[in-house]
Amino acid sequence: MKIGFVGLGHMGGPMCANLLAAGHAVRAFDIVPANVERAVARGAVKATSVADCVAGVEAVVTMLPSSPHVRSVYIGEAGVIAHARAGTLLVDSSTIDPLTAREVAFDAAARGLPMVDAPVSGGTAGAEAATLTFMVGGAERDFEAAKPLLACMGRNLVHCGAIGNGQVAKICNNLMLAIGMIATSEGMALAAKLGMDPKVFAGIVNTSSGRCWSSDTYNPYPGVLGNAPASRGYSGGFGADLMLKDLGLATEAARTAGVPVLAAALAQQLYQKHSADGHGGKDFSSIILQYLKAAP
Amino acid sequence: MKIGFVGLGHMGGPMCANLLAAGHAVRAFDIVPANVERAVARGAVKATSVADCVAGVEAVVTMLPSSPHVRSVYIGEAGVIAHARAGTLLVDSSTIDPLTAREVAFDAAARGLPMVDAPVSGGTAGAEAATLTFMVGGAERDFEAAKPLLACMGRNLVHCGAIGNGQVAKICNNLMLAIGMIATSEGMALAAKLGMDPKVFAGIVNTSSGRCWSSDTYNPYPGVLGNAPASRGYSGGFGADLMLKDLGLATEAARTAGVPVLAAALAQQLYQKHSADGHGGKDFSSIILQYLKAAP
Amino acid sequence: MKIGFVGLGHMGGPMCANLLAAGHAVRAFDIVPANVERAVARGAVKATSVADCVAGVEAVVTMLPSSPHVRSVYIGEAGVIAHARAGTLLVDSSTIDPLTAREVAFDAAARGLPMVDAPVSGGTAGAEAATLTFMVGGAERDFEAAKPLLACMGRNLVHCGAIGNGQVAKICNNLMLAIGMIATSEGMALAAKLGMDPKVFAGIVNTSSGRCWSSDTYNPYPGVLGNAPASRGYSGGFGADLMLKDLGLATEAARTAGVPVLAAALAQQLYQKHSADGHGGKDFSSIILQYLKAAP
Amino acid sequence: MKIGFVGLGHMGGPMCANLLAAGHAVRAFDIVPANVERAVARGAVKATSVADCVAGVEAVVTMLPSSPHVRSVYIGEAGVIAHARAGTLLVDSSTIDPLTAREVAFDAAARGLPMVDAPVSGGTAGAEAATLTFMVGGAERDFEAAKPLLACMGRNLVHCGAIGNGQVAKICNNLMLAIGMIATSEGMALAAKLGMDPKVFAGIVNTSSGRCWSSDTYNPYPGVLGNAPASRGYSGGFGADLMLKDLGLATEAARTAGVPVLAAALAQQLYQKHSADGHGGKDFSSIILQYLKAAP
Repeated sequence: MKIGFVGLGHMGGPMCANLLAAGHAVRAFDIVPANVERAVARGAVKATSVADCVAGVEAVVTMLPSSPHVRSVYIGEAGVIAHARAGTLLVDSSTIDPLTAREVAFDAAARGLPMVDAPVSGGTAGAEAATLTFMVGGAERDFEAAKPLLACMGRNLVHCGAIGNGQVAKICNNLMLAIGMIATSEGMALAAKLGMDPKVFAGIVNTSSGRCWSSDTYNPYPGVLGNAPASRGYSGGFGADLMLKDLGLATEAARTAGVPVLAAALAQQLYQKHSADGHGGKDFSSIILQYLKAAP
Repeated sequence: MKIGFVGLGHMGGPMCANLLAAGHAVRAFDIVPANVERAVARGAVKATSVADCVAGVEAVVTMLPSSPHVRSVYIGEAGVIAHARAGTLLVDSSTIDPLTAREVAFDAAARGLPMVDAPVSGGTAGAEAATLTFMVGGAERDFEAAKPLLACMGRNLVHCGAIGNGQVAKICNNLMLAIGMIATSEGMALAAKLGMDPKVFAGIVNTSSGRCWSSDTYNPYPGVLGNAPASRGYSGGFGADLMLKDLGLATEAARTAGVPVLAAALAQQLYQKHSADGHGGKDFSSIILQYLKAAP
Repeated sequence: MKIGFVGLGHMGGPMCANLLAAGHAVRAFDIVPANVERAVARGAVKATSVADCVAGVEAVVTMLPSSPHVRSVYIGEAGVIAHARAGTLLVDSSTIDPLTAREVAFDAAARGLPMVDAPVSGGTAGAEAATLTFMVGGAERDFEAAKPLLACMGRNLVHCGAIGNGQVAKICNNLMLAIGMIATSEGMALAAKLGMDPKVFAGIVNTSSGRCWSSDTYNPYPGVLGNAPASRGYSGGFGADLMLKDLGLATEAARTAGVPVLAAALAQQLYQKHSADGHGGKDFSSIILQYLKAAP
Repeated sequence: MKIGFVGLGHMGGPMCANLLAAGHAVRAFDIVPANVERAVARGAVKATSVADCVAGVEAVVTMLPSSPHVRSVYIGEAGVIAHARAGTLLVDSSTIDPLTAREVAFDAAARGLPMVDAPVSGGTAGAEAATLTFMVGGAERDFEAAKPLLACMGRNLVHCGAIGNGQVAKICNNLMLAIGMIATSEGMALAAKLGMDPKVFAGIVNTSSGRCWSSDTYNPYPGVLGNAPASRGYSGGFGADLMLKDLGLATEAARTAGVPVLAAALAQQLYQKHSADGHGGKDFSSIILQYLKAAP
């Protein structure tokens, strides 16, 4: 299959490599020339612009850092929608706000271009190992069409309903994840300060009603889970600043939807504080440091 | 075994009945005479005071509504500690603050009375079916001594470490539970308002990093789980006002311990608002109504 | 002076009328034709587009609802910057985010167009009575140049420093105002519920360290101040949804600036809840209703 | 007048001295002997117990650190109520929760002892200079009776209504003060980070709707007000840990009254964090450090 790929950064680079490894013909573009060279070294054809990247392809995959980037790549005279030929399948794997995803898809549909939003979870490790989870929004037919492509880059392909719902699923999941991590941090820090052994407490919670992914799989208290980032100085994992970005998307989507999200807004500010304190590059479970300074 | 039981309300009543059903000889006391009569009808001996209740018994079990009640039942000239004979095992199943639990146990120890704190989860249904979970704090030996007794009233007996840790485990678990329920409420309400099918969203979250007990076992969105309180008008279950009480204990314990608990304090205030709005008697998952008013 | 005026709504309409009343020649444009007709009836020249509106004028005044509107009116081939002749003074009185204000002014400067941002406070009543306060950002020289114009529409002209600072002053003031109103609401509701006469409590606070504009000038408790919106069913005044908009700008500016604003984010969510509950059209002091439901 | 004084610490010591300086005969008691000696050196009669302190006096003044201390000094066989002769006027200047104040006064009334609660503001400097403000709760007649006494120790005597209302006024004022200080901190930090001169911004706010005591009299941004604690490293003033104590009383009173206080609970947790970070001994305006770490 002939594919145009735009956005070859930490995530897009290995995703593109996996498409190449699966035998697809890929035209690759990025505003950073070195990123394009790296793709070319793996077998991609160098494209010199978005228009050049999507010329003659059957599908386009994009992996971009934010909504404005997605708008500028897709919309306008130099964009994907203006240059892709009718029928080309568009797959945007960026994490952006659902409204933008829907607006871009609306413009695409007007030009006969089917589109799905397909944000991922799994991080750079998942991108490299082709084990990403894709949360896909779009028509059933378009989801089916995208499947073979996505299957080269990931393992779990989840259809979330109509266009934009991939983004909704991702940001609402991460909203719950951030609050759950903060809940776990407060519970663990308090139990420890009140005299309980953190491992014993985690063991009880994890078989009780307080359990969550952050407590049983990714516990933020150092030493409770040997393979969690908490047990290696909060290195690796999912960066606090990435969580901060997703909380920004979630609260902004809630603002436009008119839904009060008090706990999510608190979580956003706590991660903002954490980032301002210099911890934005650590794994997001390091938020417990805001509490442990007080605890031990 | 000869047991004195103080506190025969919604929880204590059936717990006492289960001790009787298991063949123990129970002296029963409550400040409400009708509660005593009910115990007597099941085979208990009527006691006319705390002192009378603990006269000659080998163990005392108490189930009281709050810390001041526990203090007044145990401490002072008319209390358990003054009247129980040395060596009597004291088991307090009330949910109270850990500091009070430790202070009372300290006084008891000074009189040669071993004590464990053993708060429960499982609600009135669990009390009646003898399927409660006991979170037990105290010396290993005392935990072992309490086991046969507790086993008549519950199914899971969890040793949490030293005295007071039963309370710590319970209130810290419930702190995490309350925040998790609010996280789930915000995530579900937002996803639904943004256009996703709540069941589809719950399905995705429950296999992803946003999952928690409140999302996969007790989902607050009506219709997502057929057997959850959300699907029967938030009747039954664990009352919002009981959660409010436990959040009060958690934030108060955090205050004395010097641990900031920002999300728990927000949760407490949201449940306070919920109660003030007249929903205190509903299951605690009804907190989602604070968000759904906005959503549909 | 020849002036082009874009944006003739509830605020812009009377502001334009005051410029006309002061003897200026005004070309008027709005996307709603009826708004233009109303300006024409007061003496304005009808403009058929932004380009037509700014043709040959010495100054341009704009009063628009949000950042995207400001961008689309100023930037692009059909915008103010493309069509105003060099040296025309640009005055934007919209309340928008400071970054957009600075970006637009940067583009204007590149075309030789001096610009100030000049958001207002005072509401529609101030707009009609020409008693608005203008918070002005821009070079000293441009502020001086704008003064005669602004003086036709308002009473207080405050120079806040460089371009964008008018917006900074407004949104940061309103951030403090919103939190102060919530603080007053909590203090008044709690004092009343604990048994104090609200007027007596307000009297004490207003001569003590708890005083603020919301307590001594605009008290939200009904009956404390006879002329406050609280004493006439929260009608008139500054709408809760307008405060919600400004809190959105403040938290978004804080996000981009990397400053955690925990209380402002809570205020935003409380106003979001208030709006979702159907109170968005009431004066912003009606936020106390979120507390009084519980109090009386 | 013959007066018994219990509690001779940082506040009570100088208050007692001022009563002596005004010519009253004072019997003085404190659990710290050195405090009693200091009072004796100024002319007080040494009392060896609470009972001894109130023997034969016409009025009793107490200044104690918390509710449990007040209970233990007033109630029980060794307490003030048991030993003061009928008709003795009781004045408690401790800052405690209103419910305890009312309970103690209720017991006192049953023994024919009129009582007022009279917490103060003004700090140790005000105690020494006899310039304290007294917020007094109690019957009009008892307030009048207390006036001559209070006038020896303070300048402003404010009658707040029935017994307990002195406490209500104080904790609700301080609730508003704490939130106002946080509002000012967020507004100042954000305005500065967005590029405004802090003094210019403060000047604008202080003539606008965002003004409050914390912005115009006690501004937390260093250098804005030369005589504020912010301009001398946050030394002196009203300690952050004292504000934390008052927020604890306010949120606890709100809990028992069933009033949700979301912003006050956030303020409490921020001061808890501030204290845990080691800043509890600084002036309470130092809370801005939680924001400025991010700002400069």
